Amino acid sequence: MSALGKQPLWNRVALVGVGLLGASLGLALRTRGVCRQVVGVGRKGSASLSVALERGAIDEAVTDLAAGVREAELVVLCVPVGQFDGMLQAMAPVLKTGAVVTDVGSTKAQVMAAAARRLGPGVTFVGSHPMAGSEKRGPEAARVDLYENALCLLVAAGAEHGEAERRVEALWQAVGMRTLWVDAAAHDRWVAAISHLPHAAAGCIVTAAARTPEAFAAAATGFLDTTRVASGDLDMWTDIFMSNGPAVTATLDALSEEIAAFRHAVATGDAAAIRKHLAEAKAIRDELLARRKNGGT
Amino acid sequence: MSALGKQPLWNRVALVGVGLLGASLGLALRTRGVCRQVVGVGRKGSASLSVALERGAIDEAVTDLAAGVREAELVVLCVPVGQFDGMLQAMAPVLKTGAVVTDVGSTKAQVMAAAARRLGPGVTFVGSHPMAGSEKRGPEAARVDLYENALCLLVAAGAEHGEAERRVEALWQAVGMRTLWVDAAAHDRWVAAISHLPHAAAGCIVTAAARTPEAFAAAATGFLDTTRVASGDLDMWTDIFMSNGPAVTATLDALSEEIAAFRHAVATGDAAAIRKHLAEAKAIRDELLARRKNGGT
Repeated sequence: MSALGKQPLWNRVALVGVGLLGASLGLALRTRGVCRQVVGVGRKGSASLSVALERGAIDEAVTDLAAGVREAELVVLCVPVGQFDGMLQAMAPVLKTGAVVTDVGSTKAQVMAAAARRLGPGVTFVGSHPMAGSEKRGPEAARVDLYENALCLLVAAGAEHGEAERRVEALWQAVGMRTLWVDAAAHDRWVAAISHLPHAAAGCIVTAAARTPEAFAAAATGFLDTTRVASGDLDMWTDIFMSNGPAVTATLDALSEEIAAFRHAVATGDAAAIRKHLAEAKAIRDELLARRKNGGT
Repeated sequence: MSALGKQPLWNRVALVGVGLLGASLGLALRTRGVCRQVVGVGRKGSASLSVALERGAIDEAVTDLAAGVREAELVVLCVPVGQFDGMLQAMAPVLKTGAVVTDVGSTKAQVMAAAARRLGPGVTFVGSHPMAGSEKRGPEAARVDLYENALCLLVAAGAEHGEAERRVEALWQAVGMRTLWVDAAAHDRWVAAISHLPHAAAGCIVTAAARTPEAFAAAATGFLDTTRVASGDLDMWTDIFMSNGPAVTATLDALSEEIAAFRHAVATGDAAAIRKHLAEAKAIRDELLARRKNGGT
């Protein structure tokens, strides 16, 4: 019996990677009794595994990938997306028949293709993108409530949703997330628009503003808020942009068009066009904010 | 004697406009005993004046501009920059010899030119840009501490700083601001880079993302933070972009170049170039953040 007095959803869960996302998931799974056992897989010589153990995010620490996933009912990839292909290839021969593999990666088309290529027919891959995080990294920053009240986008390998899909969805719900199924291509377009675009733009705003470095003497909260995401983790974000190229370039093209139109309005002193552009953006954002405050998605 | 036990810096101060900035200034001036009397000038039929009176932001409410500024030692323009030229023209004939006029406007080159054109030799204009505000508007949102610990950029009409410049600087310091003198052209380049650029970009990020409207189902705090300033006041911002055209178009050109370079890195799958761009932005922003946390400007 778990701490919550319910049967655990899973027996042995292997978290491959115990950084912020992996260790936070471990904390939530163990605290809420979602599984019987959490094994953390990490690199030899890295301090992350011992921090994760100390913080109670995992029951057991393993540095050998094959050993860590061999007996697992569920494997969760919590490493950068760029490492998925090699890891899936490495773990495929040792996974149990009936095992389920999922992930916390920020893009899905490349990931689903790698899973289809690398995993045998006895293993089911379900794509997960829990939309939770922080600028901080590592198991030191892990929080038991990191996933609470956030949205998890889910992608199924096939058209049919079977037991594996239901159990992965139940896992995210058990740590407090809302869930939404979407296909891989749509997922990647969505996150390009609402996550990768603002991230790319924030970085470009910083480097463009830095051409007038003396201006930073006057930088206020507006500048820091608009560019907050630019302080995110470099490896993770390089990985994301590498794995979502077509959708990202499409959103950057849309952004360039919007900037060109606004620039034209400013350059020609067209107050009505400036106001219309600002009003459109304000209306869209205000509606989005109101929808979120009303508890919608 | 004022509430602080010091001599007030000014006798009669006229606040032309009692919205968020004007009413907050009135609250701070009266609470801190910076002047003997605050008169608020507003439009006939607008509720702002009575709200400002009720909230204690002004001692007296006047709807006639000439009547409001006639006896004032100091006039503070707290209306959109686009109204300055007409107002300066209207008040010039009635201002006392020795009167000082300042403002809270977000751009300075056009403002200083209008002041030079409209005001007689017996009146001194000192440009002020208190870098404080909120997405909220109106005297209802006024706060006695709105200006505290923020920076006020100051622009003098001439090369010499006289008594008027010193007293205007002392006024902003008396309501808790740090002050920094800068010339009008530099001021406008600075604020274009660190305020108008992020504002324009935030709006363009929203309208570009809205081309994939279904993506908003997954919009998280990152998107809302990056675009927060896009919910700002439309009239004020239209005015700002209209009054700072050349500096704004220059920063938008810089932004477009940065986006084009980043897009190229993504489109060609150049991980090193993507990482370099992200690393540069992160380093600049992190340093800026650290400088602010250490109490610097």
